[in-house]
Amino acid sequence: MTITTVALDADDTLWHNESIFHLTQDQYVDLLKDYGDPDHMKARLLEVEIKNLKLYGYGVKSFTLSMIETAIDLTRGAVPAKTIASIMDLGRAMLEHPVEPLPGVAETLAVLKDGYKLVMVTKGDLMNQEQKLARSGLGDCFQAIEIVSEKDANTYLRVVARQGVPPEDAVMIGNSMKSDVLPALEAGLWGIHIPYHITWAHEHAEPPADSPRFAKLETISEVPDWLTSVARRAGDA
Amino acid sequence: MTITTVALDADDTLWHNESIFHLTQDQYVDLLKDYGDPDHMKARLLEVEIKNLKLYGYGVKSFTLSMIETAIDLTRGAVPAKTIASIMDLGRAMLEHPVEPLPGVAETLAVLKDGYKLVMVTKGDLMNQEQKLARSGLGDCFQAIEIVSEKDANTYLRVVARQGVPPEDAVMIGNSMKSDVLPALEAGLWGIHIPYHITWAHEHAEPPADSPRFAKLETISEVPDWLTSVARRAGDA
Repeated sequence: MTITTVALDADDTLWHNESIFHLTQDQYVDLLKDYGDPDHMKARLLEVEIKNLKLYGYGVKSFTLSMIETAIDLTRGAVPAKTIASIMDLGRAMLEHPVEPLPGVAETLAVLKDGYKLVMVTKGDLMNQEQKLARSGLGDCFQAIEIVSEKDANTYLRVVARQGVPPEDAVMIGNSMKSDVLPALEAGLWGIHIPYHITWAHEHAEPPADSPRFAKLETISEVPDWLTSVARRAGDA
Repeated sequence: MTITTVALDADDTLWHNESIFHLTQDQYVDLLKDYGDPDHMKARLLEVEIKNLKLYGYGVKSFTLSMIETAIDLTRGAVPAKTIASIMDLGRAMLEHPVEPLPGVAETLAVLKDGYKLVMVTKGDLMNQEQKLARSGLGDCFQAIEIVSEKDANTYLRVVARQGVPPEDAVMIGNSMKSDVLPALEAGLWGIHIPYHITWAHEHAEPPADSPRFAKLETISEVPDWLTSVARRAGDA
């Protein structure tokens, strides 16, 4: 057993994402402030988002459509078209938002890419995720990009099979316990949880009870040492 | 040289797509009939769609957002929110539309899959294309599914590289000269054009002037014989 392949989530692992959704939500409830209580609106928006996930999937376009649907519902059709145009502008601004790698990301990937096969594994809009990767300047670090509609154990099995790597030779790193860590462990990969300061309510999950292949790290900068320690333990065994 | 890999477009090659967009457009201009001339609205919608392609990419969610934007623009903000809700319903109906393979598709893929590696290569919403493939019943025919944000020569080079196949051992089959045939030929693959009765204006292109690796067929049912004839010519040479 040697870890040869490092798979990484993108949103809130490589760059900010949830914080942009949060800022947009604040602007959204402000646009609609004449129609109700902000917290109630946010709760209703979350319900609509989750209801729409099966049909729309993840990403900014889905979120924009859910914001429009929620505004029409909450106002019982009274919201003016100009406000809907402003909601669409919020969505467009999210898509055009600058992409800045989180602290330590660029340096860590530069180190890891010489010793490991790096694979980005992310949900979201296909085109938007490709554009974010390009704008992030991190594109050259990755040997493969996997933009997927759902992150379950089968997804991770497919990803490692595409790389010709057995699951136990790969680790998945991400901020979401529910999407990045638990299904990767279930598929037989290693899993590292690096929390982000905000987690989307739909992505919340408890850590695994007891898994020898699980680790929680504070920042991505700790990953190279963790990989070295795993290799050393395997050598000792 | 032996063709071992058959790549196929999905929308309007395996199942109807553009006709559903056309029907939806007719319902759309009908919803907005108090606000202007249908042909002018359709022309304006096409402009908005093309303008938004770079930011939104392809697919039904992008189209839905473009329909909403066009409605707000054309009515100078006078369109009622309830009409916008109806436009969103049109988009939702497209996503939920039944997926029926075009004539000859299921039979032809059943034959081809025993002799060739079949790869689906399509643009559009990630989740929607996966759902359409599942609903079509054709999923088991394909060894790989590539949902891509753009179809250019590099895309086709990446697709064949992922299969470990040289470009000249693969053929791309589709209804769009611009997206399926010309860039595949440019990448060194073979290209087969099978026209669909409607082509989205943005996808129109002239056939290649003179390419020994290009063919135009009437229906997908002619593909197995075409592949046999290419193999025979290669054997004779």
